[in-house]
Formats: sequence, C-alpha cells, structure tokens
Amino acid sequence: MADVARLAGVGMGTVSRALNNSPGVAEATRKRVLEVAEQLAYVVSPEASKLRPGTTGRVAVVVPHIARWFFAEMLEGVEAALREAGLDVLLYHVGGAEDRREFFQRLPARRKVDAVVAVAFPVTAAEQQRLELMGVHIVASGGQMASYPYVCIDDAEAARKAVGHLIFLGHRRIGMIAAVDPDEPGWPATLGRSEGYYQALASAGLVPEPELVRTVNWGGNEGAEAMSQLLALPAPPTAVYAHSDEVALGAIRTIRRAGLRVPEDISVIGIDDHPLAELTDLTTVHQSVRDQGLRAGRMVVALINGREAELSFTAPTELVIRRTTAPPSR
Amino acid sequence: MADVARLAGVGMGTVSRALNNSPGVAEATRKRVLEVAEQLAYVVSPEASKLRPGTTGRVAVVVPHIARWFFAEMLEGVEAALREAGLDVLLYHVGGAEDRREFFQRLPARRKVDAVVAVAFPVTAAEQQRLELMGVHIVASGGQMASYPYVCIDDAEAARKAVGHLIFLGHRRIGMIAAVDPDEPGWPATLGRSEGYYQALASAGLVPEPELVRTVNWGGNEGAEAMSQLLALPAPPTAVYAHSDEVALGAIRTIRRAGLRVPEDISVIGIDDHPLAELTDLTTVHQSVRDQGLRAGRMVVALINGREAELSFTAPTELVIRRTTAPPSR
Repeated sequence: MADVARLAGVGMGTVSRALNNSPGVAEATRKRVLEVAEQLAYVVSPEASKLRPGTTGRVAVVVPHIARWFFAEMLEGVEAALREAGLDVLLYHVGGAEDRREFFQRLPARRKVDAVVAVAFPVTAAEQQRLELMGVHIVASGGQMASYPYVCIDDAEAARKAVGHLIFLGHRRIGMIAAVDPDEPGWPATLGRSEGYYQALASAGLVPEPELVRTVNWGGNEGAEAMSQLLALPAPPTAVYAHSDEVALGAIRTIRRAGLRVPEDISVIGIDDHPLAELTDLTTVHQSVRDQGLRAGRMVVALINGREAELSFTAPTELVIRRTTAPPSR
Repeated sequence: MADVARLAGVGMGTVSRALNNSPGVAEATRKRVLEVAEQLAYVVSPEASKLRPGTTGRVAVVVPHIARWFFAEMLEGVEAALREAGLDVLLYHVGGAEDRREFFQRLPARRKVDAVVAVAFPVTAAEQQRLELMGVHIVASGGQMASYPYVCIDDAEAARKAVGHLIFLGHRRIGMIAAVDPDEPGWPATLGRSEGYYQALASAGLVPEPELVRTVNWGGNEGAEAMSQLLALPAPPTAVYAHSDEVALGAIRTIRRAGLRVPEDISVIGIDDHPLAELTDLTTVHQSVRDQGLRAGRMVVALINGREAELSFTAPTELVIRRTTAPPSR
C-alpha cells in the first residue's frame, strides 16, 4: 500500500479510501490509485511467498571466469535449476586466489545468500567452516571436493578414454599438452587429466617420455605454442592428447601452419566437446557441462529446503570420434 | 550484535557483557563470543556502507543466453564494472519473449534492484515505462535502443567492412548467411548486418541475387546447413559473408567436407572475432564485446549515483584478415 501511495503520489489514507470505494476521493485520483494498484498486482510473486523464514531467496554463484565456455555453460545450468526453484542468482566473478579469499571473508556475514556454488575452484577448509557457521550451504560444481557436496566428471577416466583411443589406433609416441590455471595450481582437473594419460600408457606397456609432455596455461594460443615445441623435437609425436578442446584447436593450428595435415600426419584429441569441436570436426571426450550445472543447482535447492539431497554426482563422459584422429602413417 | 548472539548461542545481554568485559560471563562463553565477534568483524563491507539510502546495491543483468560467447563475454564486462563500484549482480536468464514479459512484470515491483542491464534484446516501451515508474534505471548492452541508454556496435558498418573486403579481393558472386533469433525477430543486429551487405554490393555496382542469401538461426550447425544449400546452386558463390563467426565456422566445415578448400575455392568471412576465430585462422570483423559490457556497466553506475552519464556509445569494429579469404580462382 505504501508503494501504491508513493507511485500514485497520494497519502496512504487516500489509497485506502480509493481501494475501499469510500467517499472523499476525486474520481481522477481514484482512477490513478486503481491503475497503480493494478500494475502492482503483478507483484506478489508466488515463489517469494514460499521462502522459508530467515532465508534470503538468493544463492551466490562464484566463478573464476565468466566468458570461458566451460564456466558459462556451467553457470547456465546452475542458473536454470535455481530459477526453477524461484531462487535468485547473485553472480560473483572472483579472479585470483586473493579475490577469492576476500570474497569468502566478506560474503557470508553480509547475510546475502542461503548458499554458495563454487564453480571449478577449491574452497579451503577454513572458508568452508566459515560458511557453515553462518548457515550458508556450499556445493562445488565442476570439481570434486571430498568435504562438501560436489558435481564433477572423472577426469582421469576421460583422459584414459582419449589416450586409449590414440593407442587403439596404433600410436606409440603420444604427446600430452597439459593445462593448468596459474591461480589454481592444485585444481584436480589438471591432475586427473594428466594421471589418466600415464595410466593409459602404462596399461599399454608404453614408457612415458618426459619430452613429449608440455604444460601450459589453459587456452588456444598456449596450446599452439606447446605444439610448436613438440614439432621441434627430433622425433615429434604422431598423436597429441590435449587437456581441453581449446588447447587442442590451438595445437591443430600450429600443425596446419607447419604444412602438416591433421590427422594424416599427426592426430589430435581434446577433452570437453566444446560446441566448436563439432564445427571443427575435432575428436574429443564429451562431457555435459550444462547438466553438471543443473545437478549442482538442484543439490543447492534440496540443501536449502532441508530435503534429502544426493551429495555427490559424477557425470558420464564419452569418446566422440570425428576427423582429427587416424592411425599413424609412420 | 544479534548475529554474534545467534552464532555464539547466547543472549544479547551476554554478548554485551562479554564484549565490555563485564562480570557474570563464564570464561569459555566470553572466549566464544569474542571469537565469533572477531569473525564477524570482516562484515562491515566498505561499499555496503556507501550505498545511497533507498537503493538495494544490486543490478539485474538480463540475458537471453548465458553460454553463448557473445553473451558470456558481455556479462563478464558488465559484472566487472558493477563489482568495481561495489554493486552486486543478479543474473536473470530469460529465454523466450514470454519469459521476458513475465520478468519485466515482476521484477521492478519486487524492488530488488536499482537498475536493469538488458543484454542484446529489445525492451518494449511499456516495460521501460514500468521500470522508470519504479525508479529502476535501464541500459541496453549490445544493441541500440534509441529510447534509453545503450552500448552497441554499428552492425551495418561491420557488415560493409566484411563484404567490402570480399569485393576488394575481386569477388562478385558473394553469398550471405544471415542469422536471426527466433525469439527476437526484430533485433537490430540482424537487420544491420544484412543492410550492410546490400549497401556494400550497391556501392560496388553489384546487383544482389536473392538465391545467394540464406537466413538461419544463429549457430554453427545452422551455418553448415545454409552452406550446403549455397553449394547446391548451379553457380555457387565464390565468397560467403556470415553474420557471425560461429555461422562462418559451420559454413567452412561444409565446404571442407565437400572436398573444397578455404580460401582457394571459396572465401569465408564472419563478424565478431570470437576467440576461436584466431585459432581457426578465420578472417572476420573484430568487436570488443567485453569492453562494451564494461561501458554499459559504468553507464549504470553513473545513472545510479546520479552522475552525468554518457548515454550512448558505439564501439569500434575492425577488419581482421587471416587465412579464410583470398581472391577468387574463377
């Protein structure tokens, strides 16, 4: 009613009289009040009224990157699940480790949110404890953190599928372009995706050669640079496994610019099934990132509503053979 | 103090006595209260205390897509500008027109935000009026809307640069793969990017041929399908201009799968300078989407703070020649 009064430019008493059809209100004023009231009738949102007392109806989604495909896709899934449940999404882009530390110090006490979704970065035990102390739930989306609920893929298994495919085709000199995030040296995706490479080689009886492994920051240009180094070796690999599709696409650019053909001269495989992997005919290991986001979002909703929640989910991955892998020609 | 009491599991009086070092509080209790109080000392966030009275400190960023590059990149820019100013970002993904209608009916009256950033979709005059009525500012990011502040590129100019480059190389049969969003039939990017094609042809004295123009939904697979139709023509184009890089990459896949070479047999150019354009050596017209987002975010901050604001900005575009365009071979 205060809103109606303010917007109609009249006092509360006038609003009351206008709505109750009482005398003493000019017809034009009554009309204006009724119009404003009608507009505001949209207001009562069903979900808002369902909020449990003491909750904010908001969830913080914290991402180290927004514009990179993996993070944007994850965010889209999380947002869809939260919106479905009538919760609002507060988006926080926290870049480096320092940013994150500050975020976790400030956020919970501001009592702004009921839960935090951490997309693909680790939350320390102290930060987690602080959130819990304030009654703020936490879920990891895109990465496994044993100590709180999470959704992830089995990175080592994805890597074994990729490298296993190259071995199956007959490759023996298989390079790896490993990707790390300088802000998250311990992030498990990197470890798992490297571990799977060594596991696949070992199970085929192949001895890993350190010179065939290059480690770069995530990104296409970085993959391109690593590939230059591999091509400069006296005996370059006949196939390259990259930690992500973007890294793989960078490697392919280098190979093509060197006048070599993919897959005739060198095979390349990535991980992700980035939408442009299909467009560029890249062989890869598929993961459904949006689906992981949806599941993480639904976990959050269950936790907030005090419902029984599945506390971890490992999403499936699948080898997708396209046109960048073939048997070795030499 | 109420927060400290709640978290320490004691009454307000106990908190007061503990903090003031008054007698009558067990040592263990005092210690707990002090610990909790210390943790909460992080609380007072400098930006929150700077909020103008009656404002929420939150801005709604409304996007029709999250995971598509253009939208994610724009969101990253907007978020950075708002965060810099200590404002929180509420993210709303509104898919279709119906979704959007509902959003604009509900949001302003919930008094949740001080402003709305509409990323690349039109807001109707009625929706705009409703926002203004509630004192909620509105800025369009990625698209020109004469009636409220906006940041955009000159889509027709970008198109003229792309098609002009093909004409300069000597092409005369130039196809266009135009992209539309089924949810936004009137969205200006499509119109401008088509208009620029016809303008460039006209200024070179070329007569447009309707069979050389295909209209599809935004997306790589859609571009691939349109290219199949163009290749099936009795006289296919020698060069193709696509409304976006993703559409262009789809077209290139079709050309390569048909056993033809890019650019030797057919040249292809896009618009955007998507990060993968560099990786795939795609010739395109660059726009800095993140910078547009930053500018839109800063416009919002100025409007909220009642400062003099630049009310429109048209970002520059630039032709980037890579390896998918060359003179025609026939």
